[in-house]
Amino acid sequence: MNVELISVGTEILLGNIVNTNAQFLAEKCASLGIFCYSQTTVGDNKERLQEVVEQALKRADLIILTGGLGPTKDDLTKETIAAAMGRKLVEDTSWKMQIEKYFEERNIHEIAQSNWKQAMVIEGAKIVFNHNGTAPGEIVEREQGGIVILLPGPPNEMIPMFEESIYPYLKAKTECVLVSKMVKLCGIGESRAEEMIEDLMDAQTNPTIAPYAKTCEVHFRVTAAAKDEKEGETLVMPVVNELLNRFGHAVYTIEENVTLEEAVVTLLKEKNYTLTTAESLTGGQIAATLIKVPGASDVIHEGYVTYSEEAKHRILNVTAESLEKNGVVSEEVAEEMAVGAWKTAGSNVAIAVTGIAGPDGGTAEKPVGLVYMSCCLNGKTTTEKYIFKGNRQKIRDCTTVTALNLVRKCILSGKK
Amino acid sequence: MNVELISVGTEILLGNIVNTNAQFLAEKCASLGIFCYSQTTVGDNKERLQEVVEQALKRADLIILTGGLGPTKDDLTKETIAAAMGRKLVEDTSWKMQIEKYFEERNIHEIAQSNWKQAMVIEGAKIVFNHNGTAPGEIVEREQGGIVILLPGPPNEMIPMFEESIYPYLKAKTECVLVSKMVKLCGIGESRAEEMIEDLMDAQTNPTIAPYAKTCEVHFRVTAAAKDEKEGETLVMPVVNELLNRFGHAVYTIEENVTLEEAVVTLLKEKNYTLTTAESLTGGQIAATLIKVPGASDVIHEGYVTYSEEAKHRILNVTAESLEKNGVVSEEVAEEMAVGAWKTAGSNVAIAVTGIAGPDGGTAEKPVGLVYMSCCLNGKTTTEKYIFKGNRQKIRDCTTVTALNLVRKCILSGKK
Repeated sequence: MNVELISVGTEILLGNIVNTNAQFLAEKCASLGIFCYSQTTVGDNKERLQEVVEQALKRADLIILTGGLGPTKDDLTKETIAAAMGRKLVEDTSWKMQIEKYFEERNIHEIAQSNWKQAMVIEGAKIVFNHNGTAPGEIVEREQGGIVILLPGPPNEMIPMFEESIYPYLKAKTECVLVSKMVKLCGIGESRAEEMIEDLMDAQTNPTIAPYAKTCEVHFRVTAAAKDEKEGETLVMPVVNELLNRFGHAVYTIEENVTLEEAVVTLLKEKNYTLTTAESLTGGQIAATLIKVPGASDVIHEGYVTYSEEAKHRILNVTAESLEKNGVVSEEVAEEMAVGAWKTAGSNVAIAVTGIAGPDGGTAEKPVGLVYMSCCLNGKTTTEKYIFKGNRQKIRDCTTVTALNLVRKCILSGKK
Repeated sequence: MNVELISVGTEILLGNIVNTNAQFLAEKCASLGIFCYSQTTVGDNKERLQEVVEQALKRADLIILTGGLGPTKDDLTKETIAAAMGRKLVEDTSWKMQIEKYFEERNIHEIAQSNWKQAMVIEGAKIVFNHNGTAPGEIVEREQGGIVILLPGPPNEMIPMFEESIYPYLKAKTECVLVSKMVKLCGIGESRAEEMIEDLMDAQTNPTIAPYAKTCEVHFRVTAAAKDEKEGETLVMPVVNELLNRFGHAVYTIEENVTLEEAVVTLLKEKNYTLTTAESLTGGQIAATLIKVPGASDVIHEGYVTYSEEAKHRILNVTAESLEKNGVVSEEVAEEMAVGAWKTAGSNVAIAVTGIAGPDGGTAEKPVGLVYMSCCLNGKTTTEKYIFKGNRQKIRDCTTVTALNLVRKCILSGKK
């Protein structure tokens, strides 16, 4: 099965927004083994839309359109598709009631006349429920074969509708499933990681191994095409296990949806540890990243942003002598920050970072990007030095990721 | 002049990457008054690419292609375009030398044979210099009118090439310029903001006024088409001034590139103030956002993440009685946090937030999304209550933005 994606919206043509819908739909379709041959964006313009749709109808098994389903005169996706397919628009009384209910729930009692347009659907279409708006989605199956799906443009409406209704519908239509696992690692560069599994990557057919670089992380997606989930798992898991074997503790998860901060919070919970932070150049970003995770309050009670030398001294007990002798960006100060935070907070673990995020403040000896980080676990410190590349925010992002990973490494090696 | 954008790349069709190139190019073209009628993505497939290009050649004044210019056999954009335009590929000796130089600078002495393919260009094309890769861009002007531009796919190559060479080239070709200003405001909801300028929006022709909603901010872009920059300014500024007049202090900038955190840091610098933070649900995000700004160290020396009640008590002197009586998410505790942080840090300004980010922890009386924030300016506190909608991160993002704006408002009203 192949799919063409058509996005309708002047705001995309003007470059006001990035077309993330196309990426979302393409990826989801690919995971079902439905390959996307073409993605097109057109404005709310009848002739142009008609031309694109008629062309797609000729060559694609499946067309997914997003956008242009709103209540205004500009929105004409539905009308154009109906015409191109030689069908009428008919009123769907149950959706009309749904629109009434939608406004009632929001205490809106004067409903603009234009909204009733949203109850008009293509004759013979299956209605796709929309929890977050008044435009329903539609699935239209053609007599001569082929499927046309219409979805609203706003991602907060489109994505839940796709997940809830379209994905299961398409899954039932496809013969093969793609099963994939994401091996996520941190602390090994992309080139080095690829080198370490070069033989596996060269030999790949089914499953395939694809690398993705994220800020200071590398992800490998292992994907197998199979008859069913179970066969897919059987193909994927031996490769995943070999990656785990080669990368060891650098792998923090093999779950698609698990982030590094979630892996760290889970590990802290398992060990019943609390963590505190002492941040200079990241300025709170490490703590804020951990607190993204629901339930982080079990393991992180407090943290310190000590941006000035005076704050490092007063709050964390970094000595004036050490600041003077070693400089604020040094192994010694990082270590004193970690020990100071660990003592002050009375936590099991403390992570401290000090460095030069730039754009100013670098010297030949201590360049922009130089970062020292120290992790104090039950009184024992581990300190690392890095020179990160990139702009100010990139350096701060890399510091955050690498510091979270240092916490992981220290706890894991403490386990042995 | 109108433009069609064609992106070539299997990684986009598979949904592995978001097509940010199309957005970048569409926005840049729009700023030159070149309207984009269609955006298409195709894979590295000769037939399909040829079909799309031939269609575009018929109807567009300008075609910009990105991607498919690499050294491998898969990359066939150049070959396909040359064929569609009835031209040959010829070797460009100066670019061949450039490729040699590129590898030399990187200490690579064995150059794979496939790289020399990149010195082959479409006959009669103008070469566009690429500082970050070995594929040159090309500008091809057709005898019968119309322009085709080829650029590499990786944004770190494409964007500098566009800015350096293509933008000036196109600017010289277009008769009109678009001049725009971005009026950015915070603290007024999108619907309310649009209501306040409904008459201006209804009357708009040139300049136009377009609203953009960001997390807890509203931006209005005022754009005029004009002969030159000066005429554009003359058209845009009266409207901008009227918006400033209506929205008052809610506007934090009229500069495209200035962020809220930059506006806050600038204001603090102007007043010679230092700021400290006392964060509960945001967990360091307010401090980390301010420290994004280069030079933030002048105005922010330290901050506190006080996630637990015990930390609020010990670090910020929030009393046990107050926590007991009012609850940790309350006006009183927010105020005590702000005063405590202000005293502890000895700063001029302190901003404190406490709230329920969810997904758990909400009650009927204190629902998820309830946030109290307090700003202490030279000992005087201003405290506000909000109920933000959305998931955990959305609530934390809104809290961060609104807290930064509270700092602005307090300083500005202190000015009077």
